[in-house]
Amino acid sequence: MKLSEIAKIFNGQLVNTDGNIDIKGLKNVLSAKKGDLTFIADNKHLKDLEKTGASAVLTFKKLDLQIPQIVVKDPQLVFYKLIEIMFPEEEKTGISENAKISKSTKIGKDVYIGDFTVIEENVEIKDGVKIYPHCYIGKNTIIGENSTLYPNVVIYRDTIIGKNVIIHSGSVIASDGFGYYQKGGKHKKIKHIGRVVIQDDVEIGANTTIDRAMVDETVIKRGTKIDNLVMIAHNCQIGENTILVSQVGIAGSSKIGNNVILAGQVGVADHITIGDNVIVAAKSGVAKDLEPNKVYGSGFQAIEWSKWKKILFYFYKLPDILKNIK
Amino acid sequence: MKLSEIAKIFNGQLVNTDGNIDIKGLKNVLSAKKGDLTFIADNKHLKDLEKTGASAVLTFKKLDLQIPQIVVKDPQLVFYKLIEIMFPEEEKTGISENAKISKSTKIGKDVYIGDFTVIEENVEIKDGVKIYPHCYIGKNTIIGENSTLYPNVVIYRDTIIGKNVIIHSGSVIASDGFGYYQKGGKHKKIKHIGRVVIQDDVEIGANTTIDRAMVDETVIKRGTKIDNLVMIAHNCQIGENTILVSQVGIAGSSKIGNNVILAGQVGVADHITIGDNVIVAAKSGVAKDLEPNKVYGSGFQAIEWSKWKKILFYFYKLPDILKNIK
Amino acid sequence: MKLSEIAKIFNGQLVNTDGNIDIKGLKNVLSAKKGDLTFIADNKHLKDLEKTGASAVLTFKKLDLQIPQIVVKDPQLVFYKLIEIMFPEEEKTGISENAKISKSTKIGKDVYIGDFTVIEENVEIKDGVKIYPHCYIGKNTIIGENSTLYPNVVIYRDTIIGKNVIIHSGSVIASDGFGYYQKGGKHKKIKHIGRVVIQDDVEIGANTTIDRAMVDETVIKRGTKIDNLVMIAHNCQIGENTILVSQVGIAGSSKIGNNVILAGQVGVADHITIGDNVIVAAKSGVAKDLEPNKVYGSGFQAIEWSKWKKILFYFYKLPDILKNIK
Repeated sequence: MKLSEIAKIFNGQLVNTDGNIDIKGLKNVLSAKKGDLTFIADNKHLKDLEKTGASAVLTFKKLDLQIPQIVVKDPQLVFYKLIEIMFPEEEKTGISENAKISKSTKIGKDVYIGDFTVIEENVEIKDGVKIYPHCYIGKNTIIGENSTLYPNVVIYRDTIIGKNVIIHSGSVIASDGFGYYQKGGKHKKIKHIGRVVIQDDVEIGANTTIDRAMVDETVIKRGTKIDNLVMIAHNCQIGENTILVSQVGIAGSSKIGNNVILAGQVGVADHITIGDNVIVAAKSGVAKDLEPNKVYGSGFQAIEWSKWKKILFYFYKLPDILKNIK
Repeated sequence: MKLSEIAKIFNGQLVNTDGNIDIKGLKNVLSAKKGDLTFIADNKHLKDLEKTGASAVLTFKKLDLQIPQIVVKDPQLVFYKLIEIMFPEEEKTGISENAKISKSTKIGKDVYIGDFTVIEENVEIKDGVKIYPHCYIGKNTIIGENSTLYPNVVIYRDTIIGKNVIIHSGSVIASDGFGYYQKGGKHKKIKHIGRVVIQDDVEIGANTTIDRAMVDETVIKRGTKIDNLVMIAHNCQIGENTILVSQVGIAGSSKIGNNVILAGQVGVADHITIGDNVIVAAKSGVAKDLEPNKVYGSGFQAIEWSKWKKILFYFYKLPDILKNIK
Repeated sequence: MKLSEIAKIFNGQLVNTDGNIDIKGLKNVLSAKKGDLTFIADNKHLKDLEKTGASAVLTFKKLDLQIPQIVVKDPQLVFYKLIEIMFPEEEKTGISENAKISKSTKIGKDVYIGDFTVIEENVEIKDGVKIYPHCYIGKNTIIGENSTLYPNVVIYRDTIIGKNVIIHSGSVIASDGFGYYQKGGKHKKIKHIGRVVIQDDVEIGANTTIDRAMVDETVIKRGTKIDNLVMIAHNCQIGENTILVSQVGIAGSSKIGNNVILAGQVGVADHITIGDNVIVAAKSGVAKDLEPNKVYGSGFQAIEWSKWKKILFYFYKLPDILKNIK
């Protein structure tokens, strides 16, 4: 793509160039080489730009440097959109002869089903769905328009998946909730016949697990994004446009609001309600309901071990020390 | 199923009805609709019952409400048992022609082996075992009567699995322990030739990993239930009827007693012994042996970030502050 | 193998025996039985040796016991090497007819490709590579000499894997980084076209996830060992000979030095730099850059819950209490 074409699409101003430069790659400032276009979004990273090997830069203001430039309002956003234009998703359609698909399956138009994928009875695969190899789709499942399942995804039976949902490899949807009752000192399994509902525009990372409800539904609402290795237990309800960062764990029947952010490794106890627009800092434990529109935390920061040990020494003695002081 | 039939099976007393009501579903109080039976186990949730759409309720006492009722001693338990009666496990037998099964495999009666499952040499599959699609069973493995492996389970070689064991999708059993010795500043792999033994009635959630021992055994004893995304390292011994909640991690050679509960995200260091009947609260770190019959913890609760930051300010200065006070 | 042969290979001194003993197994002191050889590496475990059922022991000094002995300088290391000699890796070569391999694939000598593995276009598989069943190798991927992928590993497109790399079952390499930009209150996906590079001699445990970079590279440098259920986010750089223990999570764009050890369940925030030779204790959170050659921590130890609750009572009131004292 010529630099001039890019400037034209995004209504940008060419600087130090007539635009007759071939752009073959998109890279960050420090890794860019000849033929690459990079971007700079603020003054803070201007120094790095002197070290770049890029052939041109998308920038938020005209820079006093010799490098060819395209000046745009939001270079970062332009960069993201350019990735999509220059590296379009590959077309993938067709049903593999090596997939094992129940005859009762309803399959829409322009569907891709990869090798060795297994689809059980009464499944509905809507238009534009892509299912990569080695997936397993349990019976009575519905997968909405243009959703994508990467290799080795497992969907247990009765699951409802909306439109434009993306599920990455190794994730397991609708396995049994972790529920037992006691009898004679033993744990007896509570059969789980509920289901999982994943609404439109949800993305689920790799090796994440979402358990089915006992008799009702575990629900992930529209636009929510879930990272890798996250655990969502039975009967949870996750709101809209919420962000669950990697290794978050949410215990049974908890309700997370809309536009919530749970940072990495946060744990939420069972039957908790977290209000809308809440942010919980990384590694925190949530054991009580959280009010909306607030930031919460209970995480610590690693410091030098010798200092940490000293602090712990006093911490574990707090009750005694404070009693003495009194 | 007629309400009268249900009352008869569980010896319940019909109230506000002759029992001539068709029950098609089982749901919780707030999600139940016409045709559903729900349950109420204590006075605390009585208010919710006024909002239910259920056609009838299993209850622990006669309620002063118009809704048709079955009064039983333990409505929750009756509800669990009713799930099993109304929604029986589907019969699944037969060996897929698309599975790749070594000729040396010994296969019992009424076995199900799903599409594309691979079974290596000298494996024994006992009566009533169900192995869903895309599983991999390493050589010399034994799978006991009526055990179930859901899709995409991987069992490395030499594993011993008992009766009535359930392993959910994506779990990996008997991968190499994480062990290295140092040589010339490099980590050299210690070859792991031990095995994993899973006793009867164990359930293992989705995407959990249990590593093989170096030369001995990693053992999960009978009746223990393990949630999703749990890590059990090489040479661990997990006792009987123990509960390991999601995202628990147990380092090498640790011994967990019987009837222990490790709540979510608990971490246990290596070579630790945890006594019988111990409960460890969520997110705690276990770095020393724990005596039996006690409750332990080291987890924190998320509070408002501004308050948390203030506390941390003083916490990190505890040694200095207390010195000054002295 | 005769005890005399073992003594000869490792230049050991036979004690209480002429070496005419058949050694069939290798076990730890307490689990060893007749026919097993065990080892003892220090005085601390000498007592256990009285209880052993082993037929002989590798020892660091001549012991005043009747058990047949081989005295060597480093019995533990000899034991590790003996495992490799007595239990050699099984030879595995040949391409399964049930694998689905693109015609464009370049395959070296002595390669094993297992049943139902899928290899997309333009992949290069070098000499001696072993790919077990149910793996998925995305297009344009290169897998270096003598590397091993265990069953159900997923490699997304464009990945570079070095020599002698081992990846255990269920791990997902190069899935999309967790990156979104905001538009109209919604999270819009940032397309990730970067890649993952895994250098020589890296081992990756089971069910670990390593995300692809946005436009650059996520890099795992040579000799680094990664345990099970670890999360490495987009654009991270992990140094050489580093150890990441189970359930560690590293957020986007962080750089971990050489010879670092992150113990179990450590979390590292995004854009962090950790210097060479750093050790971070289990369960710690890293939110600031860490200087090289130091030990850091922020983890707590589980104590009795009643005591812990008392400490927390004062801890959460620290600001008020200290104000009062002033």
